[in-house]
Amino acid sequence: MLVVMKQSATPDEIERVCVWIREKGYTAQPMPGAQRTAIGLVGNDGRVDGSALEDMPGVAEIIYVSNPYKQVSREWRKENSIVTIAPGVSFGAGPVPVIAGPCSVESEAQIVASAHAVRAAGAVALRGGAFKPRSSPYSFQGLGRTGLEMLALAKRETGLAIVTEAMDDAGAELVAEYADCIQIGARNMQNYSLLKTVGKLGKPVLLKRGMAATITDLLLSAEYLLAEGNGQVILCERGLRSFDTQSRNLFDLTAIPVVQQLSHLPIVADPSHGTGRRDKVLPMARAAVAAGADGLIIEVHPQPEKAMSDGAQSQTPDQFASTMVELRKVAEAVGRMIAGPAK
Amino acid sequence: MLVVMKQSATPDEIERVCVWIREKGYTAQPMPGAQRTAIGLVGNDGRVDGSALEDMPGVAEIIYVSNPYKQVSREWRKENSIVTIAPGVSFGAGPVPVIAGPCSVESEAQIVASAHAVRAAGAVALRGGAFKPRSSPYSFQGLGRTGLEMLALAKRETGLAIVTEAMDDAGAELVAEYADCIQIGARNMQNYSLLKTVGKLGKPVLLKRGMAATITDLLLSAEYLLAEGNGQVILCERGLRSFDTQSRNLFDLTAIPVVQQLSHLPIVADPSHGTGRRDKVLPMARAAVAAGADGLIIEVHPQPEKAMSDGAQSQTPDQFASTMVELRKVAEAVGRMIAGPAK
Amino acid sequence: MLVVMKQSATPDEIERVCVWIREKGYTAQPMPGAQRTAIGLVGNDGRVDGSALEDMPGVAEIIYVSNPYKQVSREWRKENSIVTIAPGVSFGAGPVPVIAGPCSVESEAQIVASAHAVRAAGAVALRGGAFKPRSSPYSFQGLGRTGLEMLALAKRETGLAIVTEAMDDAGAELVAEYADCIQIGARNMQNYSLLKTVGKLGKPVLLKRGMAATITDLLLSAEYLLAEGNGQVILCERGLRSFDTQSRNLFDLTAIPVVQQLSHLPIVADPSHGTGRRDKVLPMARAAVAAGADGLIIEVHPQPEKAMSDGAQSQTPDQFASTMVELRKVAEAVGRMIAGPAK
Amino acid sequence: MLVVMKQSATPDEIERVCVWIREKGYTAQPMPGAQRTAIGLVGNDGRVDGSALEDMPGVAEIIYVSNPYKQVSREWRKENSIVTIAPGVSFGAGPVPVIAGPCSVESEAQIVASAHAVRAAGAVALRGGAFKPRSSPYSFQGLGRTGLEMLALAKRETGLAIVTEAMDDAGAELVAEYADCIQIGARNMQNYSLLKTVGKLGKPVLLKRGMAATITDLLLSAEYLLAEGNGQVILCERGLRSFDTQSRNLFDLTAIPVVQQLSHLPIVADPSHGTGRRDKVLPMARAAVAAGADGLIIEVHPQPEKAMSDGAQSQTPDQFASTMVELRKVAEAVGRMIAGPAK
Repeated sequence: MLVVMKQSATPDEIERVCVWIREKGYTAQPMPGAQRTAIGLVGNDGRVDGSALEDMPGVAEIIYVSNPYKQVSREWRKENSIVTIAPGVSFGAGPVPVIAGPCSVESEAQIVASAHAVRAAGAVALRGGAFKPRSSPYSFQGLGRTGLEMLALAKRETGLAIVTEAMDDAGAELVAEYADCIQIGARNMQNYSLLKTVGKLGKPVLLKRGMAATITDLLLSAEYLLAEGNGQVILCERGLRSFDTQSRNLFDLTAIPVVQQLSHLPIVADPSHGTGRRDKVLPMARAAVAAGADGLIIEVHPQPEKAMSDGAQSQTPDQFASTMVELRKVAEAVGRMIAGPAK
Repeated sequence: MLVVMKQSATPDEIERVCVWIREKGYTAQPMPGAQRTAIGLVGNDGRVDGSALEDMPGVAEIIYVSNPYKQVSREWRKENSIVTIAPGVSFGAGPVPVIAGPCSVESEAQIVASAHAVRAAGAVALRGGAFKPRSSPYSFQGLGRTGLEMLALAKRETGLAIVTEAMDDAGAELVAEYADCIQIGARNMQNYSLLKTVGKLGKPVLLKRGMAATITDLLLSAEYLLAEGNGQVILCERGLRSFDTQSRNLFDLTAIPVVQQLSHLPIVADPSHGTGRRDKVLPMARAAVAAGADGLIIEVHPQPEKAMSDGAQSQTPDQFASTMVELRKVAEAVGRMIAGPAK
Repeated sequence: MLVVMKQSATPDEIERVCVWIREKGYTAQPMPGAQRTAIGLVGNDGRVDGSALEDMPGVAEIIYVSNPYKQVSREWRKENSIVTIAPGVSFGAGPVPVIAGPCSVESEAQIVASAHAVRAAGAVALRGGAFKPRSSPYSFQGLGRTGLEMLALAKRETGLAIVTEAMDDAGAELVAEYADCIQIGARNMQNYSLLKTVGKLGKPVLLKRGMAATITDLLLSAEYLLAEGNGQVILCERGLRSFDTQSRNLFDLTAIPVVQQLSHLPIVADPSHGTGRRDKVLPMARAAVAAGADGLIIEVHPQPEKAMSDGAQSQTPDQFASTMVELRKVAEAVGRMIAGPAK
Repeated sequence: MLVVMKQSATPDEIERVCVWIREKGYTAQPMPGAQRTAIGLVGNDGRVDGSALEDMPGVAEIIYVSNPYKQVSREWRKENSIVTIAPGVSFGAGPVPVIAGPCSVESEAQIVASAHAVRAAGAVALRGGAFKPRSSPYSFQGLGRTGLEMLALAKRETGLAIVTEAMDDAGAELVAEYADCIQIGARNMQNYSLLKTVGKLGKPVLLKRGMAATITDLLLSAEYLLAEGNGQVILCERGLRSFDTQSRNLFDLTAIPVVQQLSHLPIVADPSHGTGRRDKVLPMARAAVAAGADGLIIEVHPQPEKAMSDGAQSQTPDQFASTMVELRKVAEAVGRMIAGPAK
């Protein structure tokens, strides 16, 4: 930690900061500059919370030198973490798995048809929400346990791994019975109670970036899971809130190489939420693979125009099949491959 | 709902949209323009979800004419809602109550001292977190039930109403036993499970705006509470995420008159989180009152430099006492008054 | 400047940074920490550009300790600058001047009527654009020199000082012949050629904050003017681009006390552009005065529904007169007064 | 245009809006809904400015159905525009040209070495600023005409086309003498005087998106150029301002397919400014090609650690050569090719 003093700071004010640092058991190392003095805090084991210093007289700014997260960082673990959610379905190992399926589980027929379609095209996991976080209380909220049972049926029929969202503590335990990977949605990225609960369940987790979360925030939320002993965490970029309404979100693909540099955890991309428009999914899925994504999650619905949610961003099975063909080419061009049996 | 067609849309494409509308049981009213045709959906009782139309051939855009929320709107209820959290402590009734206290409950001595100090200055409710949502799992997470008991003690000693945060379903029930008003934090504004649980508890709620939430999002989250039968909802503006690091958040005071126009619910302002810097609390608290806020929530700590969280934005008791003196003048200048006995 | 090294940085990598610093003629002061080493650059007179270091092996981050601006800073000049644009019309001196008038000069009748109306209500300067930056080339672009002559007429009739915008070098010289204060609009805040030209003209300048400009950016743009020898600079907060469409911009009133802390230059607020809606101008003008603004600039049009631009955010003369009455009360409540003869 | 009335709007208020519309010479078509009445404005040839209606009694919102731009739109011209800046260097024709070179022209040796290096790797145009928009007046401002002459020399030596920035009217005419394509920088995207001047010069233009510009804003700025008769316009995505400091900007690659749908103009991507970090340029350049970019502009410096500006985001010649090899693979994978002779 570095305490930057104002140009007008008096020797007394500088000394008072040094005293505060020493009282906490650290060493204070003043560093006078032409314009300002900066005081280093040396000897700390982890990050020290210096917010109390921020408004002390003469203090201009507190600058943190260490990262606030630990176990998720590349410095903690150099090699990539490989997260395996089902036999043969691994993220971070090299090949790029694709998770696909509808926004919501709507009926047995719909989810089974979706599962067959996405499996035929090469997806290795099925997405589909049984618990849906909707901004309006009057929108369809998901089928709950019934939806989970439909997912289980789809899994039995196709062998696909299941990725589905949990929204609260009770729901998380239920979801854990059925899912191979528990999704934590963007709106719950900083729902720390849920993170702790899910961290203890020991199932792989897909953690989506919040719509105004910095990458540091995302990594700190993942740290909650690792701090509970669960290292099976897949991060997900799904777009940020933006001032431009041309797309639903602002898809931040640079987050992929940034996360890969800072953390050993795999990161997947969601071009469906990232763009919000079906016809933008193909170009942005290609871009995500080219940027180095460790996986993709794509919305596919047998009849998007009848979807109960997210119809506008869901691909048809045919569109998804073409997308997969295209993604294989891009993956190869960047020295990777799409996971799963060649189609 | 209005479906705007592309300039290149064919008569067939226009007809297909009309068919979709009629199949849902509504009337389609095409409106040909010089450049484009727009098709009105007439006969709906509430908002129709048209996202499935968005990518139909020839469709350029879907425009919603009705609001997505109902019970929170001014059109639903013309007069201001008055939310009374304790005898004599009402929001929306005219006088402006001030809630004050530390970020976290840290000890019996600290919270009781805080309570006496803020009461002496004129606050009518005490804030202080027993459950703390912290971005790092290694930061102080609050004292939990012990903290709630300390708040109860502070209430017995001073008579102040208690406002404190709940972070999950189990916690909400516990908080409801001690608090006069349950706070839902910015990070949980779209934690819909928590909203439903808290909506059912029947206690007054202080709902903070999420850091990238539109005002529509905020009103929809409030709608979750009203849809559960709980109309005792106070909204709170506490600053948005911004690209400028000069202040912790971007305090959106315009939200106050905007919410007051769209909704009958009271809205309070939090200049402590809104700015993140102690020396900015006074000017922005004044500005909030001048903008018409129905209440304020201000962080005060007996010794900010020793605070376990948010020290930099906490006022000292002396600063808070001066702030209250100043706020009374501004309230009077805009034809209002600060709630509570004159000091 | 502080160079933060990665945890994995080798002694060689640390040494290479020290060499770079020494080659530039400064002293390198390494500061080993538990997790990372940070290297201070000592001995610099002003800000050193360290961007070339950012991607050297082992470097994690570059942190600047000094401000990038000089003459605009409080550290350069402790007392407030007072900017006088016409006899008796001063910003930063204590009393709060109000500039008012239409978005554009549309006709002699319109601008003269506007001038009389705003003067009667207590404004001390007249705004009105003769050169209009419009996002569409097909929108009304202003009357140019003819408009400036109409402003001159309005000045002769009412004695009001004139504030009007310049958009390019040629226009700036023309504007300087007629105006008492040259406005540089938000879209041109980083038009450095224009800043240099206007800086040389020696007229007072009203510099509006760009719609995604940090406060540091704003101060750096002002520094361009001071660097040309022109210290007569008034800053202006007029709202930032936001994701919420409920208001035209996100009015950042916290910028007022932040700028006042960092700089000696006066800062005024524009609640018309800040909100974009006529009925939000009164509450946010009050809030701006309460936050400590050194002046206000408000759009007023004799017939807003016939305005050629910005009709929705222009007050009528009657609304403006009431606003002025209200602002006097708020100014008094915060220990200030609205500039000009009592009405 | 559609005027949405409030639920509480009276028949009189509705009629008043209809009268306003008829007085302007259009037809008013009221469309009563269950909750609200909407009034269509029919018979307009282009976009009507309805801002004056926004605050009429009973009016809730104005919704525009037509685009505000014309000649840049796909509806105006269906086929892609092909912009040829020099013989064999075309954007929008299929193959993807790469523009490369240093941020600034620093010396004859530096620019000539850069030109040889980027040409050897396969670039077909050279970038390099002689006029530099810098946020601080104390930063290096470019070599001006001397820099342009150095660019001319580099062109004679390598045959590369020249792309370089103009910042003002006088500079634009000078730049036009030397450059094959005039760049308008992000900070000047809404400098309408410059757009008009450059539009009249008749040279191809590279127009960069402003850091908080919507895609509609970008297209409107391009419309300024087309309205002056210059259709040789290349758009450029270079990243938006963001709240996350992990990258310099938020690179909005979705803008590429969005622009390509709305407009016939080619759009290139700038991964150097888009990310701000050298090691992120390769993945994001790959992603841009995969997303369908019609060209790339990449910063390359012979010795980035000695660069006078943007050192941290400049690739070395070796890195750029590898990047080009990788980009060829990705281009092929999406059915395109990098422009220029195979290397």
